[in-house]
Amino acid sequence: MARRAVQFRAGDLAERFDLALRGDPGRVVEGVGTLAGAGPASLSFLANPRYRGQLATTAAGLVVMRERDAEGYAGDVLLAADPYLAFARIAALFDQTPAHEPGIHPTAVVDPDAVVDPAAWIGPLACIGAGSTVAAGAWIGPGCVVGEDCEIGAGSRLVARVTLVRRVRLGRRVLVHPGAVLGADGFGLAFDRAAAEPHWIKVPQLGGVQVGDDCEIGANTTIDRGAIEDTVLGPDVRLDNQIQIAHNVRVGAHTAMAGCVAVAGSTTIGRYCMIGGAAGIAGHLEICDRVVVTAMSLVTHSIREPGEYSSGTPLMDSRSWRRNAVRFKQLDALARRVGTSPKDTG
Amino acid sequence: MARRAVQFRAGDLAERFDLALRGDPGRVVEGVGTLAGAGPASLSFLANPRYRGQLATTAAGLVVMRERDAEGYAGDVLLAADPYLAFARIAALFDQTPAHEPGIHPTAVVDPDAVVDPAAWIGPLACIGAGSTVAAGAWIGPGCVVGEDCEIGAGSRLVARVTLVRRVRLGRRVLVHPGAVLGADGFGLAFDRAAAEPHWIKVPQLGGVQVGDDCEIGANTTIDRGAIEDTVLGPDVRLDNQIQIAHNVRVGAHTAMAGCVAVAGSTTIGRYCMIGGAAGIAGHLEICDRVVVTAMSLVTHSIREPGEYSSGTPLMDSRSWRRNAVRFKQLDALARRVGTSPKDTG
Amino acid sequence: MARRAVQFRAGDLAERFDLALRGDPGRVVEGVGTLAGAGPASLSFLANPRYRGQLATTAAGLVVMRERDAEGYAGDVLLAADPYLAFARIAALFDQTPAHEPGIHPTAVVDPDAVVDPAAWIGPLACIGAGSTVAAGAWIGPGCVVGEDCEIGAGSRLVARVTLVRRVRLGRRVLVHPGAVLGADGFGLAFDRAAAEPHWIKVPQLGGVQVGDDCEIGANTTIDRGAIEDTVLGPDVRLDNQIQIAHNVRVGAHTAMAGCVAVAGSTTIGRYCMIGGAAGIAGHLEICDRVVVTAMSLVTHSIREPGEYSSGTPLMDSRSWRRNAVRFKQLDALARRVGTSPKDTG
Repeated sequence: MARRAVQFRAGDLAERFDLALRGDPGRVVEGVGTLAGAGPASLSFLANPRYRGQLATTAAGLVVMRERDAEGYAGDVLLAADPYLAFARIAALFDQTPAHEPGIHPTAVVDPDAVVDPAAWIGPLACIGAGSTVAAGAWIGPGCVVGEDCEIGAGSRLVARVTLVRRVRLGRRVLVHPGAVLGADGFGLAFDRAAAEPHWIKVPQLGGVQVGDDCEIGANTTIDRGAIEDTVLGPDVRLDNQIQIAHNVRVGAHTAMAGCVAVAGSTTIGRYCMIGGAAGIAGHLEICDRVVVTAMSLVTHSIREPGEYSSGTPLMDSRSWRRNAVRFKQLDALARRVGTSPKDTG
Repeated sequence: MARRAVQFRAGDLAERFDLALRGDPGRVVEGVGTLAGAGPASLSFLANPRYRGQLATTAAGLVVMRERDAEGYAGDVLLAADPYLAFARIAALFDQTPAHEPGIHPTAVVDPDAVVDPAAWIGPLACIGAGSTVAAGAWIGPGCVVGEDCEIGAGSRLVARVTLVRRVRLGRRVLVHPGAVLGADGFGLAFDRAAAEPHWIKVPQLGGVQVGDDCEIGANTTIDRGAIEDTVLGPDVRLDNQIQIAHNVRVGAHTAMAGCVAVAGSTTIGRYCMIGGAAGIAGHLEICDRVVVTAMSLVTHSIREPGEYSSGTPLMDSRSWRRNAVRFKQLDALARRVGTSPKDTG
Repeated sequence: MARRAVQFRAGDLAERFDLALRGDPGRVVEGVGTLAGAGPASLSFLANPRYRGQLATTAAGLVVMRERDAEGYAGDVLLAADPYLAFARIAALFDQTPAHEPGIHPTAVVDPDAVVDPAAWIGPLACIGAGSTVAAGAWIGPGCVVGEDCEIGAGSRLVARVTLVRRVRLGRRVLVHPGAVLGADGFGLAFDRAAAEPHWIKVPQLGGVQVGDDCEIGANTTIDRGAIEDTVLGPDVRLDNQIQIAHNVRVGAHTAMAGCVAVAGSTTIGRYCMIGGAAGIAGHLEICDRVVVTAMSLVTHSIREPGEYSSGTPLMDSRSWRRNAVRFKQLDALARRVGTSPKDTG
């Protein structure tokens, strides 16, 4: 494990990221900071207008911002049409995630029928099962369990304590955070109602999970293997923590989901969708491209038009809420009294 | 670890599962597939009427279906009153979960005061604590941690990276998926309001968890130990992923919960209930047998009548939603204006 | 590992916890029980009035209760103004969590650049990364992964299979339950809309996580590292299982959250708040001290007044629910028909 000391000159950053510099090209930055917290050796950024007032007092040595925000600011500036995007790219220079020499840690357990590229790293106390392959530049962190018949693409990284159960295929540069479980059995049950004591029979889950290039999968997120065919994430799908993706779900490229979303089985979600935190999506639906679902909404029918969708009620003080909520039970009666038919649309 | 190559003749399947065969008893199947994806060497099934149209084009070699659906279908058919159930049973033949020779992997850490049956398998990097017992045919997968005073019944299987903290007793044939945590402390707090700075005092959690025969517990699901007595799951309880079962909860036999359900402390749930995804059930309630709760509903009172229950509002485009949702705050005023009393029922 | 046999005389308990004893000081108790389940050698308690009726039949040897509840009860009693709090303190005597001799288990993997106090315990198959420190009396249970640059304060305990990814600093006496992940990357994405195929760019997550003294963090709970500065939990914050705390969140001292709560990024929550199960709190908000949010409510705006807040609709049988829920879509039209303006407040 090696760490880099990092230091960059403003002029070099401008050139490297194709940004205009307004100020001293010799300005040196050694890290990043918020406008409120950064010091003279730090790079900061202004993207959200609500923080514009902090420009007056920031001690940041170098700030990435839009040209119009830079008017009247006396410090050194990198001008960017999209400052958050430019900051994301520059900040990667300061990401000191430790690098590891390739190889297999002596405490790791690698099945003789697994194939690990010599340019991959298998960390301490990790476990690789039979029939699995780990490509060059992949990183299997401490305590990960990779089961049978999995493929880890080049440059993919299981941070630590990730589980790939069986038949999970990750593309290239996939990043999986700790506690994530991919390829566990989907929740498939048949009910034996004819038995003396009726009971559930498990439906074998025989499919796998496919994860496209450049996906990111959050901590403690679960993606079940398909019942027969695979559960599929397209490229560049971004999943936050504690998301549940049930069996046979298909998620289109570039779709992002915030924490705690639950997607039920066999639903197909399009490309460039954005699903808000703790939203739920029922099973066997089709959601088209470019759909936005707001936080904690429940999607119970297919969506065929791009746009933003919501359910739920607004937050109130509980006393007011109780007074109003009890009336929800009378809503139909109320509407009838006012003479509205259930078919009328607002 | 050994894998079986599997191949079955239609006539043998008909006999073994007591189904009528319509077609060629010599038809050979080597795997399963969906109607749309199966080839001539695959078994498929038709249960959901919405897929009936796929019969016209399926290449499946053998299809399990109801007699009435088979009319006019020219291929080989296994007739079943409940095709999904029959398929579940047959498909188990194709489940190539690797088998392990019994024994304890050299990298596992087994406390000298634990008792492991010679016919059990303890996988790599697993850990078994003092006072725990593992019965014949049980499987403790890679990276599992079994703490103190646990019992793993015959044929039960912790897939990988499961944690049983303390005093967890699993019956026979229990299946626990990766990341599940059973027997962590319940969330018990007493508030010391008399202190100079009022603060929380932890209430010791001294009970355990009992899990009945044939239960299945999903990935990253958590079941806390009881405060004094045990948290209890009856036989054949089926829990999907990311479910939270708080301390002292009791769940009756054959109840199934979809992903992300949360059940608060000391609630009792009956037999044959079905709880939809991400539903919440408040604490100290009693839910009778055969209750269905729809997805994302919140149960805040005991339920004494079998049936289906819901809360929430329908999904709308966000513009319409905002226009209507703001009116929820006026609902009581509205009802008063129309002359409805809060006691009126629809 | 050693276990204690525990036995206490009522008179000694009264003295030790400064409670009045009504009854036999020689009464011996060896464990705890519920009023319904306790035997003559067990200590029980009565705090919730709904269990008062069980006093008539309890076999408990010794009961902690309020003076007014003790009237007419013939058994041995410890009188307490707050019986639940008194019980919490006494019951800790019966908590037989096994103790470990300090030291590093031979199967643990400790980086040469980590510093472990000789009075700490590192359990089997745990992993401690470079630059991390473990203080005296700390306990790193089986299968835990502590990454780089973490600090574990004196007396803190990672029960088992906990992951601290990077730059996580735990205060003293912090208790973290299995499956919890602290310090994973926050969900920071910038959208490159100018690319030929527009796509997400990861915003490096460079901050850490700070956890104050006496916090408790539930099983499978996730707390992300800050993007630039730290995600912060004040002292005595109590988090139940499966909670998601996003990057840059700040939670004030003594705040408690029930299971499955989700808090989005950069939100600040005050002191002494209580957040109900599965509630959601949107990002970039400020919640003042002493706010209570009821279960499954969604907080979408900042809260500046202490008090209780709710959203959602009541549970109904699904038939009634459907009849009323469909009318929610007409709510604005309904209100207009009745002549209410959207600005009117109830």
